[in-house]
Amino acid sequence: MSTFASSDLDDLLERTRSFVRDVVLPIEDAAEGDVEAAGGDRLRVELQQEARARGLLSPHGPEDLGGLGLGMVDRVPVFEAAGWSLFGPMALNIAAPDEGNMHLLDRAATGAQREEFLRPLVGGQVRSAFAMTEPAPGAGSDPSALRTEARRVPGGWRISGRKIFITGADGAGFFIVMARTSGQPGDSSGATMFLTPADVDGIRIVRHVRTLDRSMLGGHCEVVLDDVFVPDDGVLGEVDQGFANAQVRLGPARMTHVMRWLGAALRGHDVALRYVTERQAFGGPLAESGLVHQLVADNEIDIAATRALLLDACRELDSGGRASASTSIAKTFGAEAIGRIVDRSVQMCGGLGVSEDLPLSRLSREVRPFRIYDGASEVHRWSIARRALRKVERG
Amino acid sequence: MSTFASSDLDDLLERTRSFVRDVVLPIEDAAEGDVEAAGGDRLRVELQQEARARGLLSPHGPEDLGGLGLGMVDRVPVFEAAGWSLFGPMALNIAAPDEGNMHLLDRAATGAQREEFLRPLVGGQVRSAFAMTEPAPGAGSDPSALRTEARRVPGGWRISGRKIFITGADGAGFFIVMARTSGQPGDSSGATMFLTPADVDGIRIVRHVRTLDRSMLGGHCEVVLDDVFVPDDGVLGEVDQGFANAQVRLGPARMTHVMRWLGAALRGHDVALRYVTERQAFGGPLAESGLVHQLVADNEIDIAATRALLLDACRELDSGGRASASTSIAKTFGAEAIGRIVDRSVQMCGGLGVSEDLPLSRLSREVRPFRIYDGASEVHRWSIARRALRKVERG
Amino acid sequence: MSTFASSDLDDLLERTRSFVRDVVLPIEDAAEGDVEAAGGDRLRVELQQEARARGLLSPHGPEDLGGLGLGMVDRVPVFEAAGWSLFGPMALNIAAPDEGNMHLLDRAATGAQREEFLRPLVGGQVRSAFAMTEPAPGAGSDPSALRTEARRVPGGWRISGRKIFITGADGAGFFIVMARTSGQPGDSSGATMFLTPADVDGIRIVRHVRTLDRSMLGGHCEVVLDDVFVPDDGVLGEVDQGFANAQVRLGPARMTHVMRWLGAALRGHDVALRYVTERQAFGGPLAESGLVHQLVADNEIDIAATRALLLDACRELDSGGRASASTSIAKTFGAEAIGRIVDRSVQMCGGLGVSEDLPLSRLSREVRPFRIYDGASEVHRWSIARRALRKVERG
Amino acid sequence: MSTFASSDLDDLLERTRSFVRDVVLPIEDAAEGDVEAAGGDRLRVELQQEARARGLLSPHGPEDLGGLGLGMVDRVPVFEAAGWSLFGPMALNIAAPDEGNMHLLDRAATGAQREEFLRPLVGGQVRSAFAMTEPAPGAGSDPSALRTEARRVPGGWRISGRKIFITGADGAGFFIVMARTSGQPGDSSGATMFLTPADVDGIRIVRHVRTLDRSMLGGHCEVVLDDVFVPDDGVLGEVDQGFANAQVRLGPARMTHVMRWLGAALRGHDVALRYVTERQAFGGPLAESGLVHQLVADNEIDIAATRALLLDACRELDSGGRASASTSIAKTFGAEAIGRIVDRSVQMCGGLGVSEDLPLSRLSREVRPFRIYDGASEVHRWSIARRALRKVERG
Repeated sequence: MSTFASSDLDDLLERTRSFVRDVVLPIEDAAEGDVEAAGGDRLRVELQQEARARGLLSPHGPEDLGGLGLGMVDRVPVFEAAGWSLFGPMALNIAAPDEGNMHLLDRAATGAQREEFLRPLVGGQVRSAFAMTEPAPGAGSDPSALRTEARRVPGGWRISGRKIFITGADGAGFFIVMARTSGQPGDSSGATMFLTPADVDGIRIVRHVRTLDRSMLGGHCEVVLDDVFVPDDGVLGEVDQGFANAQVRLGPARMTHVMRWLGAALRGHDVALRYVTERQAFGGPLAESGLVHQLVADNEIDIAATRALLLDACRELDSGGRASASTSIAKTFGAEAIGRIVDRSVQMCGGLGVSEDLPLSRLSREVRPFRIYDGASEVHRWSIARRALRKVERG
Repeated sequence: MSTFASSDLDDLLERTRSFVRDVVLPIEDAAEGDVEAAGGDRLRVELQQEARARGLLSPHGPEDLGGLGLGMVDRVPVFEAAGWSLFGPMALNIAAPDEGNMHLLDRAATGAQREEFLRPLVGGQVRSAFAMTEPAPGAGSDPSALRTEARRVPGGWRISGRKIFITGADGAGFFIVMARTSGQPGDSSGATMFLTPADVDGIRIVRHVRTLDRSMLGGHCEVVLDDVFVPDDGVLGEVDQGFANAQVRLGPARMTHVMRWLGAALRGHDVALRYVTERQAFGGPLAESGLVHQLVADNEIDIAATRALLLDACRELDSGGRASASTSIAKTFGAEAIGRIVDRSVQMCGGLGVSEDLPLSRLSREVRPFRIYDGASEVHRWSIARRALRKVERG
Repeated sequence: MSTFASSDLDDLLERTRSFVRDVVLPIEDAAEGDVEAAGGDRLRVELQQEARARGLLSPHGPEDLGGLGLGMVDRVPVFEAAGWSLFGPMALNIAAPDEGNMHLLDRAATGAQREEFLRPLVGGQVRSAFAMTEPAPGAGSDPSALRTEARRVPGGWRISGRKIFITGADGAGFFIVMARTSGQPGDSSGATMFLTPADVDGIRIVRHVRTLDRSMLGGHCEVVLDDVFVPDDGVLGEVDQGFANAQVRLGPARMTHVMRWLGAALRGHDVALRYVTERQAFGGPLAESGLVHQLVADNEIDIAATRALLLDACRELDSGGRASASTSIAKTFGAEAIGRIVDRSVQMCGGLGVSEDLPLSRLSREVRPFRIYDGASEVHRWSIARRALRKVERG
Repeated sequence: MSTFASSDLDDLLERTRSFVRDVVLPIEDAAEGDVEAAGGDRLRVELQQEARARGLLSPHGPEDLGGLGLGMVDRVPVFEAAGWSLFGPMALNIAAPDEGNMHLLDRAATGAQREEFLRPLVGGQVRSAFAMTEPAPGAGSDPSALRTEARRVPGGWRISGRKIFITGADGAGFFIVMARTSGQPGDSSGATMFLTPADVDGIRIVRHVRTLDRSMLGGHCEVVLDDVFVPDDGVLGEVDQGFANAQVRLGPARMTHVMRWLGAALRGHDVALRYVTERQAFGGPLAESGLVHQLVADNEIDIAATRALLLDACRELDSGGRASASTSIAKTFGAEAIGRIVDRSVQMCGGLGVSEDLPLSRLSREVRPFRIYDGASEVHRWSIARRALRKVERG
């Protein structure tokens, strides 16, 4: 990772903030947060062009490919600043799933894969998708239920299966596909990751699964893989090491998710603070009411705790740890705290809070799924508890 | 109120359930809960015709005008059953604000007003609106901030002002307008209620304030009143007694809101229960996971407590009490509990929970505003606390 | 059950309140809630004598044995009034476990058992204990783990085993003992209830298990049963029907627990309300602070919801239902709500709240175990969830 | 502050853990956490002697006076390790209020004061007290209400007033007294700090205010100051700068409180984890129940978040900031989280959890006041909210 001098980081942060607030946010507000309505991929290209011109594109991307090489800790303020607008991460090329895919490819890709797939991704020439989740009874909270199969053929593999909730799939230039190369559904090994251009035979976007959120470019799609051929050099990492490989992506991707959504929550909180300082009720500004103080203070506490947990996990990641426990805790707490922050902000603004006159109602829609995406809170709690209990059992 | 034999009520309830589940719900599901997309007022007319044919229309309406005359306690199961579909209350003619307006007119209207306004409302020939809330700095949580003015003219009054969040205004046949006939904004008296057809000169629907919910026919509108003339016989109740008059409507309207939304929450809970009994994860059905048990049990507890508080307040209302304290408590607890029930149901269904494949994501949008509409939780808590403290101060 | 005219109930209630506040409460306050320090059984006898003289003793006891025969619904206000002082239930002879034991004996005892055991219990001549719980790995949350054995001998049974948390055991005149007459630990049948005087050979109080609460007369004891002989006429109910028999006691005992502890919580809330109306801070009375409003309002809501759930379950019990679901919900919610009410009351009183200058600190100790006694919240949630899920599975 | 090599810190930590678990904890357990019953000051002297011999005494004290000079960040693990036993902080000479007083004196004392008061305090030769809080209507949550007066006399001051909740007062060798040297109660300035030996004329311990906690040596006392003479060189810091001076002590003292209590919570969590891995119910170990997983995971999350907020604030303090906002947030969150951790641990252990067979019941008593001591949560929330709102108002 790049070593950013503190003053350089401050400068980058300041410029990121200006870009997001002056350029990106007005577009989001005009389109009420609906990325397709705002222009979809065409908007992405325009905004990324501007970000590139300002030296802000792909701040976390490898430096040799044109990124700024920010480590995890340094990403925190920058990604938060991007998240201030729902379209900010797309504008900076740090949106899910591209951001996590860059991280994964940077660690797992061969030289050729790096040139073919990662370079254009960092440069904003293409988007990507990560195809793991399947409809029931396939891989979901429990990845070992994986049913999509890759069968050996001369010179490569043929993959068949059905995927769902594949974020960004519509319009993606390439896919990273998780498929079973050995074992049975239920086995905790036997998965492999494949890299494939999106326009090969057999990949079909069946539909967009419509969800509460509207700001993710390319939607959350249902995708059919029908005897898709991937040559041997399309294997990402080792055969049968797909689950272990996924761990590389998992921790950092959780954390950047928290950063971006925390940014969105911060904007919501800011909108609410401004509202209560201006709005009068019962003979004084709302901001002087103790019940509002409670909401404001609880937001401040949730913001501070989310950020502290986030930084803790990022320090561990930057120092080379896998940080399974700390990223799981930071994600679980963060997703819930972000939901609470936005919810309280809505409440502070009363009727306007649930209207489209303010961005809060859409923020409340956008952040809700985060308690489910990237591992539902219940699944994380289960794994957090098991880890703690096993430590005691072992003595 | 009518005295319903228990067996008659059971029969009514059973028939209400069938109608809502067999006829209404499929329409809601097809339109994903968007009442305008489903046909708007045309759909209302059709569904009410069917409800009328089945003897289910206006179950709470006065019997002499064709309603069934249900008291508050008896409404609880019937309105819950209606709320099972977001369109159910509209189909039965018990949606807000018509339902509360019927209640108010039944108590406060003159004989002539009863014929002109209440009879067609109970019969489903027209819809109505209740125009009290104003944009800041006007009447909101604090009704005494009322700024819309009615000035005395020969033979009547001329009303000017601006209203917002006027549910059902677009397409309403008549309005009940709250306007100041004496005093200044901030005074806790001096308001009067006026009845006026919607198509008189000077009433203008400025816009629909778009909100998280999509199931309320006629929207939540911003309305301008520009020198609207209302003759003397359009005064509802006494001049200057508008705030006291509003109390008549308030308690029952809060409670029927809780009934309807509790019905919606019950459907959400049911969807989730069915999901977890069918979905497998980690080697067994989700329904056997303790973390799911927690969500299910907390839902059951919230349902029982909401219903118990609701019935308590309804008993008090049926026996002639104003029930200010008990309806305030039941509304506050109920609105929050309903939000939690739907939220946990979403969580139980994972990714599908936030998608439009299940009704839960729209339920989560629909119930959110209820913590704000009809008095935000914060305002209710403030009044609940003051009431308790005053009791102690008085000894 | 007796049919109490409403006016008679009001009168009883008023007299109960006076007795508890004027006579019992000062004794509790002087002894800081420690029943042994206050005189133990000697105090009980004195207070019950006074209660008897005032016609207040055993308000729930069968009328033919000198009780007032109150049904479950009528008990609610009276037991709440008793609970206002931690010693109130003892003074009225409605403390656990005697109160529940009276209920059980009234339903399950033979005529002879009724005379020998129930009559003196209702009259306050003796106390009793209910010996079911065992140290691990015996009967606890899971009663089927029962290990205490009763083996058939000529003319009766010989019981051996170890019991723990036996409330009131020290000083009890008789025991109801649950012992296994068939099957193995883990079997959900095969238990029998036995009635035995406390002073027979083989019953030994090993120790008082010291707990957070100090107001229960006779402590929570560990008891050894060493080859205790119980003649055939000591069997309570049928042989091998002990678990079913226990259900008779369970629902009502849960509810009277809630009533008594709700009374204690009401006193705590009252102490806090008085404090905040008198105490000044930051230039005004604490009672005008919004953060205090939040605490007060949440207490009022918790009180109302607990009472509403309680009355619901009691109505079901009075009408002959077993009310397993509703008493489980009311107990779980009530125990948690009561804990929150007392905790907020402590918080409102600041430093004095955690001191013995106010009764709040001891109330916080006393109510804590209620979330565990009579079924821990977790166990109740598990059974509430299973009941809901089974209903759906059955369709 | 001393610069501790990481390996030295690890070694110190390991030795602290051994001392606390092997030597101190058994004494606490035997005395059930009651420090007076365990020997009071005599016990303190013995334990501190052992700590001194092991090189563990006063790890935060100035090195020139025999301490180890640990900075705030380095204190976190060491103080947590000490807090594992309720008597650990006393044994290491890092208990409140001595620990905070050392910090204050190290920054504010003159050379002579340093020798007379700080040196013996660091060495464990005396204990100290900090006398600020007063009975209503004096200084409490609102320090400006200060009423204790110091009036100018030749050569010094004469102080009169009444103090309450003065921790450690009984047996303290000296007091730091906050008294008003100008202005009126309600003025936010005009206070001065005075240093005085405890055995001068006019200082009288009136009583111990008994509270839920029993582990603080010297109690929480009510103290009367009756015309106490303090010479000019007894002024600590500047005249009339007492409130500003108190801020120096405030932030760090809040944080070390959190460290110590977090240590206690960690022990509680550990006891519970061991319990649920051993205890069987419903056919398996409790540790396999999902409802237990919820409790365990929530504890893990609360522990991680408390520690992350704590370290954040400590980093700010170590770098010379006042950290008013971050210490206020860490204290508020930490005190509430610690309460929840212990409460869940109690719940996991069922009946034994509320008994004295396990340390959990006493831990629940001990940690409860922390939500009130050092600023009640409500007061902190109020100041956190005001700070956030003011920032927005200023733009």
